Amino acid sequence: MKAVKIGSVGLGRLGYEHARNLANLIPGCVLQAVCDMDEPRLRAVAEELNVPRAYTNFAQMCEDPEVEGIVIVSPSFLHVEQIRLAMEHGKHVFCEKPLGVDVPQCRQAEAVVERHPELVFQLGFMRRFDVSYAEAKRRVEAGEIGRVVLVRSYTQDPRSTIESTLKFAPHSGGQFLDMCVHDLDLVRWFTGSSIQKVWGIGGVFEFDLYRELNDADNAAAMVQCENGAMGFLFTNRTHAAGCNVETEIIGTRGTLRVAPVGARDLLQIVDGHGARQEYYPDFMSRWHDAFVAELTAFTGHIRSGTRPSDLTVYDGTAVSEAAYRCKESFECGKMLPIR
Amino acid sequence: MKAVKIGSVGLGRLGYEHARNLANLIPGCVLQAVCDMDEPRLRAVAEELNVPRAYTNFAQMCEDPEVEGIVIVSPSFLHVEQIRLAMEHGKHVFCEKPLGVDVPQCRQAEAVVERHPELVFQLGFMRRFDVSYAEAKRRVEAGEIGRVVLVRSYTQDPRSTIESTLKFAPHSGGQFLDMCVHDLDLVRWFTGSSIQKVWGIGGVFEFDLYRELNDADNAAAMVQCENGAMGFLFTNRTHAAGCNVETEIIGTRGTLRVAPVGARDLLQIVDGHGARQEYYPDFMSRWHDAFVAELTAFTGHIRSGTRPSDLTVYDGTAVSEAAYRCKESFECGKMLPIR
Amino acid sequence: MKAVKIGSVGLGRLGYEHARNLANLIPGCVLQAVCDMDEPRLRAVAEELNVPRAYTNFAQMCEDPEVEGIVIVSPSFLHVEQIRLAMEHGKHVFCEKPLGVDVPQCRQAEAVVERHPELVFQLGFMRRFDVSYAEAKRRVEAGEIGRVVLVRSYTQDPRSTIESTLKFAPHSGGQFLDMCVHDLDLVRWFTGSSIQKVWGIGGVFEFDLYRELNDADNAAAMVQCENGAMGFLFTNRTHAAGCNVETEIIGTRGTLRVAPVGARDLLQIVDGHGARQEYYPDFMSRWHDAFVAELTAFTGHIRSGTRPSDLTVYDGTAVSEAAYRCKESFECGKMLPIR
Amino acid sequence: MKAVKIGSVGLGRLGYEHARNLANLIPGCVLQAVCDMDEPRLRAVAEELNVPRAYTNFAQMCEDPEVEGIVIVSPSFLHVEQIRLAMEHGKHVFCEKPLGVDVPQCRQAEAVVERHPELVFQLGFMRRFDVSYAEAKRRVEAGEIGRVVLVRSYTQDPRSTIESTLKFAPHSGGQFLDMCVHDLDLVRWFTGSSIQKVWGIGGVFEFDLYRELNDADNAAAMVQCENGAMGFLFTNRTHAAGCNVETEIIGTRGTLRVAPVGARDLLQIVDGHGARQEYYPDFMSRWHDAFVAELTAFTGHIRSGTRPSDLTVYDGTAVSEAAYRCKESFECGKMLPIR
Repeated sequence: MKAVKIGSVGLGRLGYEHARNLANLIPGCVLQAVCDMDEPRLRAVAEELNVPRAYTNFAQMCEDPEVEGIVIVSPSFLHVEQIRLAMEHGKHVFCEKPLGVDVPQCRQAEAVVERHPELVFQLGFMRRFDVSYAEAKRRVEAGEIGRVVLVRSYTQDPRSTIESTLKFAPHSGGQFLDMCVHDLDLVRWFTGSSIQKVWGIGGVFEFDLYRELNDADNAAAMVQCENGAMGFLFTNRTHAAGCNVETEIIGTRGTLRVAPVGARDLLQIVDGHGARQEYYPDFMSRWHDAFVAELTAFTGHIRSGTRPSDLTVYDGTAVSEAAYRCKESFECGKMLPIR
Repeated sequence: MKAVKIGSVGLGRLGYEHARNLANLIPGCVLQAVCDMDEPRLRAVAEELNVPRAYTNFAQMCEDPEVEGIVIVSPSFLHVEQIRLAMEHGKHVFCEKPLGVDVPQCRQAEAVVERHPELVFQLGFMRRFDVSYAEAKRRVEAGEIGRVVLVRSYTQDPRSTIESTLKFAPHSGGQFLDMCVHDLDLVRWFTGSSIQKVWGIGGVFEFDLYRELNDADNAAAMVQCENGAMGFLFTNRTHAAGCNVETEIIGTRGTLRVAPVGARDLLQIVDGHGARQEYYPDFMSRWHDAFVAELTAFTGHIRSGTRPSDLTVYDGTAVSEAAYRCKESFECGKMLPIR
Repeated sequence: MKAVKIGSVGLGRLGYEHARNLANLIPGCVLQAVCDMDEPRLRAVAEELNVPRAYTNFAQMCEDPEVEGIVIVSPSFLHVEQIRLAMEHGKHVFCEKPLGVDVPQCRQAEAVVERHPELVFQLGFMRRFDVSYAEAKRRVEAGEIGRVVLVRSYTQDPRSTIESTLKFAPHSGGQFLDMCVHDLDLVRWFTGSSIQKVWGIGGVFEFDLYRELNDADNAAAMVQCENGAMGFLFTNRTHAAGCNVETEIIGTRGTLRVAPVGARDLLQIVDGHGARQEYYPDFMSRWHDAFVAELTAFTGHIRSGTRPSDLTVYDGTAVSEAAYRCKESFECGKMLPIR
Repeated sequence: MKAVKIGSVGLGRLGYEHARNLANLIPGCVLQAVCDMDEPRLRAVAEELNVPRAYTNFAQMCEDPEVEGIVIVSPSFLHVEQIRLAMEHGKHVFCEKPLGVDVPQCRQAEAVVERHPELVFQLGFMRRFDVSYAEAKRRVEAGEIGRVVLVRSYTQDPRSTIESTLKFAPHSGGQFLDMCVHDLDLVRWFTGSSIQKVWGIGGVFEFDLYRELNDADNAAAMVQCENGAMGFLFTNRTHAAGCNVETEIIGTRGTLRVAPVGARDLLQIVDGHGARQEYYPDFMSRWHDAFVAELTAFTGHIRSGTRPSDLTVYDGTAVSEAAYRCKESFECGKMLPIR
């Protein structure tokens, strides 16, 4: 298998996970370069993972002729500029969500990608690469549940991580942008339609900080798609049992539920609490295999010259737009159309 | 145990179920009289259940001095008038949902009940008498899940009964009125708050008849309560696996799910379809024990001179009002406030 | 419905449950008389349940011409003598397990029953009347799982009741006799065959008292039936999660599992312990409906002049014999044939 | 990470799976050589997986100085001789189960391993490397369920593969040897004790071929360990729902169940068959990750100079001995001691 050489930018929590996967777990992949402004961190990771090149300057990494593709896990406001730089230097790009911090930025990203049809561009919607979500999609496509009527999707972070969550809350963009984007992507993916109307609601049930931020600590949105299909999203940060991402797809002929009890292994425990399954402790462990799968797909596309068939830059824009409208709706108290 | 003598009006499907329960399964209850305009049906049921008196005229049953309480299972448009007649004759009243066919009717019922504080008045929200729902309520009240944030509730009828459903569709009042009232009651009951805003959506995904009726075959609504708690309802008539009524109550500290797989017994079947539980085949079997329990409570109140503490005529009005607003919202495409 | 008048002997924990069911919950049944040697207890129950007659002498109750059938819930060593007395006085008999305290006693009971084919005789194998077990049997009979290959059945009492269990341990007859008889009945019922070979094992894992009693606190037995089908039983008294009675029937074409997680209602709880279902707290709550159903069947047979078709006195003997052989096998350390 | 070079012998179904994992999925591993007597097969695999060396002669592969460790997936009767040859040439050895085809052969293997303490020797008990089994072991070790009382373990192959199963039946060694060895290993592993008594039973319920082979198509065994703990095993080849390997560990304080419904992903399907989870279609997909994990451990031990701490050649002997005694017990109809 021909080796594919990757550079990765951003070595925060998820950035480090991607870097380690690229270095160790993606078949036929070589982690050729890493980039981060935090130089001690950069050196430490480069050494640990045995990475040949380490850059504090993203533009320089883009000029490295050994690097074929770039994985962007930097702060959101840098995404679009880094996509532009990377593609103008002929690098394939994998970009974490969100595509941009507002819709105009997303449009700029679209323009860049459109100018480089010869390059792979892939978004970090890793749920699509999870075996259970992929199997659900396969069954929907095969018509097993008839027409899709409703997609219900929850994203709940474990209460155990609430401290760090509160710390990042002022810069997270709020629940709808930070948490619901994956669910909005799933609504679009499973219905095969685009979101037309949204109503976002929520409240501050426990942490007053969110009131100051004009945000909610528990939020929900109902959406309706162009083809009439419906969506319902719920998110909070205080799930007692661990990481809970569950999705239900109701069709006219059957229903699929992904991770309705979120079991992290095949273990059932029977004790003083009854018969029980535990959840994944955090999103990192929940999606580990999906993170590996999405980068395996990315390097595979580079190697084979193919493109992701149904995961494009436009999905990034559409999802961001829907998330923004949910936030606006929550703020103004009205149901809002999209466009 | 002192016998309590009951008269029952309406011998349709649910009316017959109630009559049989009153005759055979409610401890200390005597089914003293039955009433229906269909005389052959009336005679047959009276004979089968060994009921002393049979009336085709409701007013006459109200004059029967042996009858202490009346169970109303007649067509909806008759409810309010029958409540009035019964209470004016000094009879305790159990009335099936809906309280009335519109909000003004419900207000009339309120006035009648207010004039007779000496009489028991109970509404047929049988879900509250189901052991699982009652246990969920007990846990919520005990603070086990913290503050209630979201109540999600589905009412899905089995596809196997779609023929009769389509037949009754023109007179059912539509999905929100006919199906969601129980879910709206649960939202109010579990949140301990009243519904303030609603947005109802839906579509015709399979049966064109519903388009002609200006109704949907799959419908959903999101609601927000006065205290900020949220609700999400979904209903359809085509659940492949049988009768599915499931409710999830998400709190700040934990979540309760009632009947998330709706198993009708404690049987797990492992065969070519995997490991599976079957659902109740229809709502009659799902709620059989709850139907018995609610009438046991009704006759118990009569016997002991007590009143249902948290199930009043005003609940009937509030739920009807919310259901009407969902329907209006669906028709006009806007989010609507209540009052 | 013609009233059936019943006398009940034994007002211990289960005796009181049966008496209360007979008085209040069995349609068309009148609890005409109760009998117990503890006179204050007798008076109290008779008054509470409004029972016309109260006897401290069983023979006298047998002479009461109003009593049509007798429910025997007395200490095991009295069963056979009471069956004889009752039937010789022309009373129908329902007898709790075990039929007798040894096999010769069981044979005497058989002889009495054979002399009175005009009378109903029914044994207290209430599991057969549980809706889930009955549904499993129906599916087995319908051939849904092919030939029955293995029946695995557990009887585990909740640890929360260990104190009273230890108190009664010296007179319980030991785990195999006291706990496994219901499981042995199920092996015979589901395989439709008789038990031919047994090997009982066990150990004292926690409570030294059982060592003194030459018994085990955890015990298991494997059995093989005449038709080759296999059985496995396990029992203990320390189930942390509550009452656990679960049974698995493996066939050549499918498997049925009754109560594999023993949920006491349709509630799923999601909290710091994961997603969980709680078990029934004790056997009384687990089998309440089955207790009602078996006595409804008994009074129904009396009323209609029918007989239990597949639950005979010989089942009582066969199950007792198998339980004794398991105990012997455990004591001698050998696999033993039956007869 | 230092590369570890492996040679693999045997390219049957499981041999090919291991070879492909070694070539593509084991971090830091190089598949240096493959060996099989079927030369076209050998060439095809070597080419597909880009393996530098291909041998039809095992002894020659043992002389290859590039090869550091050898993975043995050849027919069982060759295992001991290949272990000897490999270790005498200084190669680390990973050997698939069974260790040998009889107990004397296993003793020979023990002697070889004892002569080479400088080399890694690891057995293919992959279940121990499955995340769910490993987590169960961790909880047992942590005392979460108290003392282990009973280990129940099933190995059921899917009915869909019955044709090929019947083809191999004459040379499989029978159900106890071919199927139960993994379960016997689990009994020993979870109880931390050795098996002392066994009673094996079974029958021919469907496929007459097994009668000719003096084998059973459904077989069970109960065992008792030196410390009093108990075990129950069941196996057949006709599981309608797919591959079912489930294990229950009952302790004095709690119970663990591994894969009680064997779900192959986190998908729940609700359709005309109820709410259901599907099983893994075959053992290859069930254990894929465990196969990768055990070889990752093997190459890790080679790299770091460590040894598997609780998985030794003696486990292989003990498990084989127990399996043989189960078979003898089944044949002679008696309960048998071990040694």
